[in-house]
Amino acid sequence: MSERIAVVGLGLIGGSLSLRLSGSNDVVGYDADPGTRDLARAAGIAVTDGLAAAVDGASIVFVAVPLSALSTVVGQVTAAATEGAVVTDVGSVKSPLYAAVRAARLGVRYVGGHPMAGTERSGFAASDPGLYDGAAWVLCLEPDTDLSAWLRLATILTGIGARVVPSTAADHDAAVARVSHVPHLLAAALAAAAAEAGALSLTLAAGSFRDGTRVAATAPELPTAMCRANHDAVSTALGDVVGRLMTAQDDFGPLIANGHAARLAWYNRQARPAEIPIGGHMLPDRLLDLGRHGGWLEQVGPETLSTMTPEPV
Amino acid sequence: MSERIAVVGLGLIGGSLSLRLSGSNDVVGYDADPGTRDLARAAGIAVTDGLAAAVDGASIVFVAVPLSALSTVVGQVTAAATEGAVVTDVGSVKSPLYAAVRAARLGVRYVGGHPMAGTERSGFAASDPGLYDGAAWVLCLEPDTDLSAWLRLATILTGIGARVVPSTAADHDAAVARVSHVPHLLAAALAAAAAEAGALSLTLAAGSFRDGTRVAATAPELPTAMCRANHDAVSTALGDVVGRLMTAQDDFGPLIANGHAARLAWYNRQARPAEIPIGGHMLPDRLLDLGRHGGWLEQVGPETLSTMTPEPV
Repeated sequence: MSERIAVVGLGLIGGSLSLRLSGSNDVVGYDADPGTRDLARAAGIAVTDGLAAAVDGASIVFVAVPLSALSTVVGQVTAAATEGAVVTDVGSVKSPLYAAVRAARLGVRYVGGHPMAGTERSGFAASDPGLYDGAAWVLCLEPDTDLSAWLRLATILTGIGARVVPSTAADHDAAVARVSHVPHLLAAALAAAAAEAGALSLTLAAGSFRDGTRVAATAPELPTAMCRANHDAVSTALGDVVGRLMTAQDDFGPLIANGHAARLAWYNRQARPAEIPIGGHMLPDRLLDLGRHGGWLEQVGPETLSTMTPEPV
Repeated sequence: MSERIAVVGLGLIGGSLSLRLSGSNDVVGYDADPGTRDLARAAGIAVTDGLAAAVDGASIVFVAVPLSALSTVVGQVTAAATEGAVVTDVGSVKSPLYAAVRAARLGVRYVGGHPMAGTERSGFAASDPGLYDGAAWVLCLEPDTDLSAWLRLATILTGIGARVVPSTAADHDAAVARVSHVPHLLAAALAAAAAEAGALSLTLAAGSFRDGTRVAATAPELPTAMCRANHDAVSTALGDVVGRLMTAQDDFGPLIANGHAARLAWYNRQARPAEIPIGGHMLPDRLLDLGRHGGWLEQVGPETLSTMTPEPV
């Protein structure tokens, strides 16, 4: 089967994906920025000068543009795409786009996606074909998701080394609020408070400050768009963290002990393999159950899905 | 001048210091743990089996034991030390020990110190003679501090590549609350909240969570002792950070923008060289002024101090 894969948006995420897929697939890329297109061509990627030319004839389209442009570009992509094409995206908040796609009743098979593999760098120049090795890549599975489209994407993504995590948009958004969006806010508050406290503080800032503020080096448009788009879940998660900090004022010991135990348990988490038959009963429910337990797909075989499930912490 | 330097406590901090000083100085080390003594001896450090034997005859004593043992061990050291010896420590909170030393009217010249060079690892096995290259090392300068003792320590520490930052105990404690102690609390709250949120969150945790929780991997006794010993300054700094987070609930954009600007300004901070004559007027005031502006000593010459002062951010 020689199917074409289009990647729209060739920044860090789309660029890394294109580099990784290009070797063994028919991949066509596009980016709105001519300079980025030149960089991608120089790296050996087939790049078109228009979005429609990239999307036309592709059976799979990855939309890897910034969150603020996502719904517009998904609209353009679906207008240009072949009927029945599988369209996915890499946006870091899933519910708003899912709602928009449902409302628009697009003539494509849309599956929301999100690779957990950003860095504080951005742009094609930061691309790395190994970016997704062992990285979690959420693929959303909703009641109206086309299961064969979902499995086709899962096949491609496990094929490039990603751990495909089945989830609903709502569960995804609540989880990333805690492990991705709130960390950006904590880093920002830490950096801003230290800077206002004066020059001595900044001179004494060492490892714990450097690590605790690292994500604040990210171009601020990106976390701002994420946090705004995921406002309710971020507020809930931030309220939880703030509540823990305020309680700790009475005695810092229990919070530090709990945090230490949680960090070690996360870092040392082990996972066990299992198989799910593709033709089995209630496959979507089994997949979502896997994701809720923190599990993921390692491989999509002809008849079974190879999965890993972490031990409870 | 062949003076002996004693290092009491051979964990990460004292071990790294001993390794770095041993080449060109007469260094004697001691640790309460026999296994640590064996490790240090195997690494070529002269180690005694008793504290008094290490301290006796030393003109400089570094006390590098955990904060919880610090005041006890400083008491033992001063009892065993030669009259007039310079005793310093590496504790991460300075005011309580300074108050205790003043109250005890010890027969030694005490100067509080604190190298900003920990990692999440600990113990002699983690020691690294390059740990202090370019690291800030606070030396406290109070109205009753012996200036020649202070300058002697500054000579040794700039000699091993550290940036010697003059500060009072109170200013130090306020600064490290912001850039070292509060980061531990934020990391703990982030890790604890994510763990309770469930397995999916932990599977989606990637770079921003890993970096934001890294210091929570530290053995919890250390940050707990620091935060408790520095309770008031930590509470103030934590209140500032929490206030910023709560204000951000209305709109996350300004906090993220401020944090980004602060992180970049810190990371890109440039410093300018200057000289301070040692025999000049009001040397302690000039040194404290240097420290309050974020400056440090690079070198102690026979007549002048070579300093660096960062540009305001």
